[in-house]
Amino acid sequence: MKRLDEFARIVLLTEGASNHFVGKTAICMLRYRTDDICAVLDSEEQGKTANDLFHVGGAVPVVGSLDEVENADALVIGIAPPGGKLPANWRHIILTAISRKMTVVSGLHDFLANDDEFRIAAKSAGANLIDIRRNDENRTATGEPFSQDCFRVHTVGQDCSVGKMVVSVELQRALIKRGINAGFAATGQTGIMISGNGIPIDCVVADFVNGAAERLVRSMEHHEMVVIEGQGCITHPAYSAVTLGLLHGCAPQAMVLCYEAKRTHVKGFSDTPLQPLENLISLYEQMATVRVPSKVVAIGLNSRLLSEEEFRAEKDRVSNELGLPVCDVIREGADSLADAVLEYRRNITQ
Amino acid sequence: MKRLDEFARIVLLTEGASNHFVGKTAICMLRYRTDDICAVLDSEEQGKTANDLFHVGGAVPVVGSLDEVENADALVIGIAPPGGKLPANWRHIILTAISRKMTVVSGLHDFLANDDEFRIAAKSAGANLIDIRRNDENRTATGEPFSQDCFRVHTVGQDCSVGKMVVSVELQRALIKRGINAGFAATGQTGIMISGNGIPIDCVVADFVNGAAERLVRSMEHHEMVVIEGQGCITHPAYSAVTLGLLHGCAPQAMVLCYEAKRTHVKGFSDTPLQPLENLISLYEQMATVRVPSKVVAIGLNSRLLSEEEFRAEKDRVSNELGLPVCDVIREGADSLADAVLEYRRNITQ
Repeated sequence: MKRLDEFARIVLLTEGASNHFVGKTAICMLRYRTDDICAVLDSEEQGKTANDLFHVGGAVPVVGSLDEVENADALVIGIAPPGGKLPANWRHIILTAISRKMTVVSGLHDFLANDDEFRIAAKSAGANLIDIRRNDENRTATGEPFSQDCFRVHTVGQDCSVGKMVVSVELQRALIKRGINAGFAATGQTGIMISGNGIPIDCVVADFVNGAAERLVRSMEHHEMVVIEGQGCITHPAYSAVTLGLLHGCAPQAMVLCYEAKRTHVKGFSDTPLQPLENLISLYEQMATVRVPSKVVAIGLNSRLLSEEEFRAEKDRVSNELGLPVCDVIREGADSLADAVLEYRRNITQ
Repeated sequence: MKRLDEFARIVLLTEGASNHFVGKTAICMLRYRTDDICAVLDSEEQGKTANDLFHVGGAVPVVGSLDEVENADALVIGIAPPGGKLPANWRHIILTAISRKMTVVSGLHDFLANDDEFRIAAKSAGANLIDIRRNDENRTATGEPFSQDCFRVHTVGQDCSVGKMVVSVELQRALIKRGINAGFAATGQTGIMISGNGIPIDCVVADFVNGAAERLVRSMEHHEMVVIEGQGCITHPAYSAVTLGLLHGCAPQAMVLCYEAKRTHVKGFSDTPLQPLENLISLYEQMATVRVPSKVVAIGLNSRLLSEEEFRAEKDRVSNELGLPVCDVIREGADSLADAVLEYRRNITQ
């Protein structure tokens, strides 16, 4: 079976839901695997380009059906289906892809391979179904120290969907530009689709979350640095188990705290205000330091809702308040984050 | 199918491993369901009593085979198998129980029902297999507040296996003695076997841990108080994901911190010293308070390794240092814990 990063004629399925709020997987695939995407499939937006819909992906065409695409090798479900269940017309598209022997890739909690109709169709057509979240992690963490020669940086967040994965990938790239042998450890379905590797940490059985994170990092210890994608938030009402297990499993020496400007409440929890950044820095540092001494060394600002002027003001304000570099990697690239991480590593290893 | 608390002629399987370190499930079943246990099965200790082996369970006989027991209705696997895999002679005992139509109850991570030989034998004999850890929890937490009329107490720990479940059960009983309508929310296999209800929280998929804990408490909101059994430790290298998801899901107003005297390192992690109790109080209170204001109101001391004199000294020392009541529920009963919880509830609801 092909590895995820070997597909080069991918169709992204965002049928009926091509917007910024639900299209995280699609947007990141368009951003980081542009050359491997041959079309976006959304019959309601047919004739536009990816850039029209998502402000990334350039001229990648938006098509109305698979008939318009030649030699496609994979159909990637690019969004969570509205309402959680696969709509009827999605089922039809997936079955068409299967009949063409395309591999269908899904990051949903409900596995394609558990759907009798898809499974039988795939078997009969000789097509593959890849459920990114499927895993059989079944070992607990050992707690054994990592190699001294592998510096671990972890992106942590004020909330879900603030840009931890994007900051991780951009930071890795900025480190590589400086000649650092840096790896990106993906822990969510989008990161795994981009990098072709990783662990869907939110779908691991609770007893094995710390262990799965530990093994992921262990498998990348040959890198001089590993940037580990964070998940959720340590104070999130629903996902804190994932966040803390990942934090303790990867035992980072440095953290980058990510947030989105103008967000006031936990996403989807309108009665739960976000914790202030200074509280979160204190909590993340206390909780990480029970494994190894660990500091938040920079702030990843997602300023997509701000004007350029508002962005400058926000950046200055937060940087002054926290005494840390603040950077929006989409506007500025991740150079200042890479500088902060490298400077911190120099200081603690002297 | 019978509920777990309806079996009344239970055989506890501890074959070849009847000691205090591995027999947690067996010991707690003997302590809290004495009248429902008709035998302990360990051919190496045949002829002794439960009290000889475990210092609980009185005259319950230790037998060498199921042939010596009449009308047994369930075989409960009372320990984790040495080495993690079921030894060959255990398989034989389980198959014998199945052939007698006994229900076989297991709290192991490897499910009996996934074992072809057991599944086929059970089907053919008409016997039931109960895997306590099996669950299909698949909803995330809502974060919605619990009823104001249901006070939530959570036992938290310095480590695994320090006595959180025993403290929870004893506290519930002491509260009931005072006329409080108190429930016990079991979150581990032994607690579930004792109470007949609960959620095996360490075996829930990570994204749903907080949600499973929330729903467990929600199902018990008709109680005036619920004592929620804790798991692991918030700083545990391997199990902190479970601990924090449970803490945030049940959103306790009061906590009882449990520890075992003379333990210096995390159980099974000889290089990891335990966090001092004062650090843990601070971390648990900070992390719990992001959901609702929450305090550690008492300390549950497991003094099984101490003499009576050492116990008195330890109790005085820790109580003075932390300014909290300290109680070993096995030596003293849980009256002082119940007093501390009730006084705290009075203070915050005035």
